[in-house]
Amino acid sequence: MYLIGELINCTRNRIARAVVSGDKDVIQQVAIRQVEAGASCLDVNGGLPGREKDYLPWLVDVIQEVTETPLCLDSADPEALALALPRCRHRPLINSITLDPTRISALIPLVKAHDAGVIALCLDETGYPSSVEDRIAICVRLVDHLTGAGICPEKIYVDPAIFPVSTNTQAGAAALDAIGAIINACPGVHTVCGLSNVSFGLPQRLLLNQVFLILAMGRGLDAVIADPCDRQLRADLIAAETLLNRDEDCLGYLDAHKKNWLGPPVKTGRPA
Amino acid sequence: MYLIGELINCTRNRIARAVVSGDKDVIQQVAIRQVEAGASCLDVNGGLPGREKDYLPWLVDVIQEVTETPLCLDSADPEALALALPRCRHRPLINSITLDPTRISALIPLVKAHDAGVIALCLDETGYPSSVEDRIAICVRLVDHLTGAGICPEKIYVDPAIFPVSTNTQAGAAALDAIGAIINACPGVHTVCGLSNVSFGLPQRLLLNQVFLILAMGRGLDAVIADPCDRQLRADLIAAETLLNRDEDCLGYLDAHKKNWLGPPVKTGRPA
Repeated sequence: MYLIGELINCTRNRIARAVVSGDKDVIQQVAIRQVEAGASCLDVNGGLPGREKDYLPWLVDVIQEVTETPLCLDSADPEALALALPRCRHRPLINSITLDPTRISALIPLVKAHDAGVIALCLDETGYPSSVEDRIAICVRLVDHLTGAGICPEKIYVDPAIFPVSTNTQAGAAALDAIGAIINACPGVHTVCGLSNVSFGLPQRLLLNQVFLILAMGRGLDAVIADPCDRQLRADLIAAETLLNRDEDCLGYLDAHKKNWLGPPVKTGRPA
Repeated sequence: MYLIGELINCTRNRIARAVVSGDKDVIQQVAIRQVEAGASCLDVNGGLPGREKDYLPWLVDVIQEVTETPLCLDSADPEALALALPRCRHRPLINSITLDPTRISALIPLVKAHDAGVIALCLDETGYPSSVEDRIAICVRLVDHLTGAGICPEKIYVDPAIFPVSTNTQAGAAALDAIGAIINACPGVHTVCGLSNVSFGLPQRLLLNQVFLILAMGRGLDAVIADPCDRQLRADLIAAETLLNRDEDCLGYLDAHKKNWLGPPVKTGRPA
């Protein structure tokens, strides 16, 4: 599973404050914590109004001082991306492209120039897709655009677009069906999603996010944007890999057990 | 989800001791605890060598003194079943029938006479099925036997037979595929499984069992034999129902939240 750590995001107050004040220690600690927790990649969102062109490149530099983990640049601003992408030492991901024509024409050249991967979010100009069929239609058009421009399917991470079950009880099932249908319709692409939308408006959101991740993995999801420091989520993810025959000889599971990642945290302390 | 509580089972030492010594308090407490935790049905296994014909009817009587929850009689002994079934006040389940010809000819008349449901375990005389195709072939023959005898599909709970991922890493994925295939091949039947086999031989077995349940629900599983007092498993099950559009208006989820079933247990205690 390709686990994209979501914690460096300016919609979080602590991160926004650190970015505005140039406090690189806070950013670096959050980066290290996610990498140590098993993140394969770190999402970087510097989306503060008007300042993203300064903040995104700064974040890239600051994070790369402490880790070699690849980055996922999370921005809708092609100018901020154009400034940040050349600074990435490892092949980055771009989060995200949609069927919006402006976004397509601005982002495809950047993806190609930097040999980047790209998250293709199943949204078009008309609003939010609700049915599986709508999503597949958008997905196929998006993937055609990208592969037509010479980007190979293996660099495309399709996000089915997840909506809250609290406003439409079919939203979870539709997103899960869409994951399976995307994999059938566009062979070779990856699938990815964020988890938090699905639980919006309900209590105990972490529980819903954790369970949704397992259900989505059961449909073939192979990447996720999530909090790697959520111990239960990480244990669930590792167990699901093992149960879905994606963990040769259960070695990943046994290794996680040795690291004490699977059960309740072991309390360490000085003997009395 | 039809949750069959598994705790009254003579393979558990505490239950075996209580059964042998006739200690009905222990049995009744375990029954009540499971019902209060949300069990839809209670599995009853009195399988102590040579004494099942005494113990199974006794267990049925003792449990029914304290609850109206239906019972699932877990026995391979037709004589013990024939003695216990008439004592069941609510339509029972029988756990389980297989393609073993002796078992078929002994159990089908009992199922019919008591209007019981029956768990149809995908095993035949030749041993353990490993592929999805083997399971479906067995399932179709078993269901044909049962429906041919006039038992309607809604009373049949097909168990795909789950084996440990520790001995065959494909075992989990094969069982999950089998659940989907059974639902397609035999419209109208329920699917059920026990959870503990899948995790045999690995550490942190409860985690694997919990995650397997979610994955199986994602394929359509609608009944499970499990421990209703496992808080995490119960929360997972409720969240999965909500995410899979099996919980109208999220009311089951919100009700479970009110009962404090979803998060960590709330500590109650006297103020200092």
